[in-house]
Amino acid sequence: MADPANVRCVLVNRPKGVAQAQDFKLVAGDAPEPAQGEIQVRNHFLSVEPAMRGWIADMNNYSEPVGIGEVMRALAAGEVITSRHPDYRPGDRVTGWFGWQEIATVPAEKVVRKVTESDLPLSAFLGILGINGITALLALTKVGQPKAGETVVVSTAAGAVGSAAGQIAKILGCRTVGIAGGAHKVRACLADFGFDAAIDYKAGPIDAALQASCPDGVDVYFDNVAGTISDAVYRQLALRARVVVCGTASITDWSDWPSGPRLERILLRQRARIEGFVIFDHAADYEDAITRLAAWVRDGRLTYREDILDGMAACPDALAGLYRGENEGKRLIRLVQT
Amino acid sequence: MADPANVRCVLVNRPKGVAQAQDFKLVAGDAPEPAQGEIQVRNHFLSVEPAMRGWIADMNNYSEPVGIGEVMRALAAGEVITSRHPDYRPGDRVTGWFGWQEIATVPAEKVVRKVTESDLPLSAFLGILGINGITALLALTKVGQPKAGETVVVSTAAGAVGSAAGQIAKILGCRTVGIAGGAHKVRACLADFGFDAAIDYKAGPIDAALQASCPDGVDVYFDNVAGTISDAVYRQLALRARVVVCGTASITDWSDWPSGPRLERILLRQRARIEGFVIFDHAADYEDAITRLAAWVRDGRLTYREDILDGMAACPDALAGLYRGENEGKRLIRLVQT
Repeated sequence: MADPANVRCVLVNRPKGVAQAQDFKLVAGDAPEPAQGEIQVRNHFLSVEPAMRGWIADMNNYSEPVGIGEVMRALAAGEVITSRHPDYRPGDRVTGWFGWQEIATVPAEKVVRKVTESDLPLSAFLGILGINGITALLALTKVGQPKAGETVVVSTAAGAVGSAAGQIAKILGCRTVGIAGGAHKVRACLADFGFDAAIDYKAGPIDAALQASCPDGVDVYFDNVAGTISDAVYRQLALRARVVVCGTASITDWSDWPSGPRLERILLRQRARIEGFVIFDHAADYEDAITRLAAWVRDGRLTYREDILDGMAACPDALAGLYRGENEGKRLIRLVQT
Repeated sequence: MADPANVRCVLVNRPKGVAQAQDFKLVAGDAPEPAQGEIQVRNHFLSVEPAMRGWIADMNNYSEPVGIGEVMRALAAGEVITSRHPDYRPGDRVTGWFGWQEIATVPAEKVVRKVTESDLPLSAFLGILGINGITALLALTKVGQPKAGETVVVSTAAGAVGSAAGQIAKILGCRTVGIAGGAHKVRACLADFGFDAAIDYKAGPIDAALQASCPDGVDVYFDNVAGTISDAVYRQLALRARVVVCGTASITDWSDWPSGPRLERILLRQRARIEGFVIFDHAADYEDAITRLAAWVRDGRLTYREDILDGMAACPDALAGLYRGENEGKRLIRLVQT
């Protein structure tokens, strides 16, 4: 049987900031036959994450940089079409590190999870029931440790992680305040994700709005952006506040180390804490997290939005578009219409 | 009986940075007679702390600012000379919020502790067995949470808190690296306080020395200074490092908010944590802490140095001198030779 055709999106330049369309190239070829222990997956959805900037950056990061000429590292969801591993059979739905390509021929270890929840859409396992929802739940509960009645502020509040973090904080009994860019996203925070208040950072300095919406200060700040938005939140931290550093999306280049207001005095005065969170440290907790998240999705308490692009041709510009803020909800590239 | 004469050191100006000699004035008068529920204490030792800068500053701090014309707020140690409270008798040794003055006539609530350990010097209860030692022990163990074998870096390592933190970390089985200003203090770190390595920040940038003395990175940073010294330590944080912000002595003025390198990316990459610690939140743990500290002092594992000035005339310049770095060990003002 002939090997199936495969289009891959490979990295061709290592950019200083966010990778742009010209830093990638689509390459056509054939998918190799799986070796013993490997499976072949037809990707239905490719994930696009802010964290991809870090996976590409050639600096001391929390994962090895993607090599030049290599398929762009990505989570994807698809269906097993060939298996040479006893745990997988054709037709199995799986998520895993399958990369930005049509057909992944990979060792079975690249699978993150077999998706057995037939009542839930496969794409959700790349977002609300995948890295985004799991990150929101574990970062919020393990680092943020919100208590009922506390005020939780979330940046990129209309995004895939932020919208989940806000809804989960609400489920846990907190007041939630979202920060997002633009009137449209602010409306999504209020209408779709149930934030008690939402602030548009594109409308000017947010200090007054933050003070008004957090009269007792900010107990938990779930941060995906760093930069001047976060500086404003730091000034409103309540006593014993917890800041979860989950992402630094507003700062596109850390190679020339950026400056900002020193935080030590605020941390000391408020006995506050800032702590970084990387989801890959918490693999042992994924299944429990998915169980909790899926229950909330099924009973309608946890909702999500997807921003779907179609076809491999959408890959090269997908990450840059994310950093231009053009998506609303979890950005995915769909390769198979089901 | 005539009221006893009392010289007080009062605050006369609210300085922008560290209070200088001219911001205080010595005032002679008589101590009032104690009312019901009050005691009169003859101070033997007055404490001088870096934190006094914050007690004077008229900004949102962690305590009410000292009022203009008021006796300078200070911990002191002395002997009860008159008591109108059932728990105290003349001759009792006490520490408390007695202020920079010879005779304190205060409600009994101002007492921090009755000192019953007759084998230990009274002055120690203002330092190693007082706020400094308790701060070192509780901040290190509660926030820093060092594990045996980890590397603990301490700033102001020859100071009252830093030298205690370093010795306690060593007792807990850690490798200790001290940062101090000047060859003399570096020698004290090594010879008196048992640090495994000590770095002189006055000799130039400390990055290379830090890397050399912390080849596996910094697991715990016990920080009393903030500023450029801390910036260098942040760059060497190990995975899951804990930074204890216990003081910000290197930054003498926070009223114009100073800038420094943004920390979010380091915190995220290293899953590290920075947290502020204020000792006054932990009063419930003081007695346990003193018991542990006193045991270490008695068996010689925990040593301390005192920098003793004599007489009320030393008060006005004592704090400024501390910020000039002129003291070696806990600075005290002695009023009674015993």
